[in-house]
Amino acid sequence: MTVLDGKKVSNDIKAEIAAEVEKMKANGEKVPHLAAVLVGNDGASLTYVGSKVRSCKRVGFESTLIQMPNTTSELELLKKIEELNENDDIDGFIVQLPLPKQIDTQKVLMAVHPDKDVDGFHPTNFGKMALDMSTFIPATPFGILELIERYGVETQGKHTVVIGRSHIVGRPMSILMGRKGFPGNSTVTLTHSRTKNITQIISQADIVISALGKPKFLKAEMVKDDAVIIDVGITRVPDETKEKGYYITGDVDYENVKKKASYITPVPGGVGPMTIAMLLKNTLLARERHRSRS
Amino acid sequence: MTVLDGKKVSNDIKAEIAAEVEKMKANGEKVPHLAAVLVGNDGASLTYVGSKVRSCKRVGFESTLIQMPNTTSELELLKKIEELNENDDIDGFIVQLPLPKQIDTQKVLMAVHPDKDVDGFHPTNFGKMALDMSTFIPATPFGILELIERYGVETQGKHTVVIGRSHIVGRPMSILMGRKGFPGNSTVTLTHSRTKNITQIISQADIVISALGKPKFLKAEMVKDDAVIIDVGITRVPDETKEKGYYITGDVDYENVKKKASYITPVPGGVGPMTIAMLLKNTLLARERHRSRS
Repeated sequence: MTVLDGKKVSNDIKAEIAAEVEKMKANGEKVPHLAAVLVGNDGASLTYVGSKVRSCKRVGFESTLIQMPNTTSELELLKKIEELNENDDIDGFIVQLPLPKQIDTQKVLMAVHPDKDVDGFHPTNFGKMALDMSTFIPATPFGILELIERYGVETQGKHTVVIGRSHIVGRPMSILMGRKGFPGNSTVTLTHSRTKNITQIISQADIVISALGKPKFLKAEMVKDDAVIIDVGITRVPDETKEKGYYITGDVDYENVKKKASYITPVPGGVGPMTIAMLLKNTLLARERHRSRS
Repeated sequence: MTVLDGKKVSNDIKAEIAAEVEKMKANGEKVPHLAAVLVGNDGASLTYVGSKVRSCKRVGFESTLIQMPNTTSELELLKKIEELNENDDIDGFIVQLPLPKQIDTQKVLMAVHPDKDVDGFHPTNFGKMALDMSTFIPATPFGILELIERYGVETQGKHTVVIGRSHIVGRPMSILMGRKGFPGNSTVTLTHSRTKNITQIISQADIVISALGKPKFLKAEMVKDDAVIIDVGITRVPDETKEKGYYITGDVDYENVKKKASYITPVPGGVGPMTIAMLLKNTLLARERHRSRS
């Protein structure tokens, strides 16, 4: 059994990106610049954005954090996005979700210029992904592909079962695993809340990608011998014995499932750390494409 | 067993559209206008485009056929597309595929303005479809959804197996059947040339959608009792006893499979006739959206 060590791989990727940035600097080139827009002061969002900005600094990117009050109107946010679209110094930017109720999230994501959409949430980029064109792949699915690739997990002809059909994980993963090439060429089944016989379907999977958010949903007796287990679930379970008052767990009953699996991602330390690394990678890509356009 | 009669349903849809057009005329409104661009003189393409243009006339749409020589350069075609994008009289247009070798098809499809892309091939429209936003759904998948809807075929919680991952049928179908709502909420497995154990997977399907192009690939012994069978395959099989020198057949061994199926589409007369009807429906939608924008 091999642990897919997202912490290690994400550090490798960050080191590779940092080396790229060093080269850019040595050549007197502009370094990648990521902007992040945070509306309101939700604690978790602040933590995520803060961590993205710090990661930028660590690899040598420029970064800009734009904080807007909780009372920001949709129009004000759209104006800010327009500014960022037009600002030639910014290579890519993200709008941290969720947004306050008065703002239409879809309208906001549509307003981000596809060339700067390093989250890969714009329909144009999503469509390019589904049509096998080069684009920005959303960070979490991109991170899973990268783990699969770096560990050489075989995917061709394998049956991949994806649990959960969210726009940011399940649906893109189901598309990506079925595309031509590697990682890909899998036979993919996308399951969700309306799926019947889910245990029967999972029992046939060579690769399980779970993005359900139900702690310890996936038990050892549900999976095939030597299955590949990718756990995208992250749930905070209240626990007074912990300093933070909770612990983090995935969708997988890790201790038991790992005895049957050929590869498995731990939580924390599996898919989670990959997400920021891939956002940085998308920002580097955005810089390179920006340069080749200008 | 119920035959999903695409010929009848497509005629119903055309009659509904014609009634809409009559209303538009009675109100003194502009009627929908579809343009079709045909490059070169491929016989089959000429037949398809001709049939699309005739169908427009029959429902009362305006239509324009633009024929360009086989030697047309990419730049000339892109200029024509730009003209059509800017021509306010045209609500939607299509570029008939395949294109001559000197032209990059992807570049051409990307040049069509998404608001006029009634084929639904532009990445922005494809991405909107995958992200559950309103858009133009490609005509063949749209036709299949319409057949399912009009016959009230249950899809929720059913296991749908799609055979073939083409951009115009298999991949969009796999996405559409797994979306929320009806038709949708299916558990979808997308199979393709790299799939192993395809017969085992098909044997579990409540709904089979085959877009493989292999005559009589799907046999009665491969499908479950009461399965729903949608046959998108259209192959010309040479046959000297026929006047045209060939006959048309689907992926399904129809005479035998129909004895086991709950619903089945014949070939010809199933999915095929729906395609043009849905192109007309998309053109009507394009007109309505165009009007509401201006």
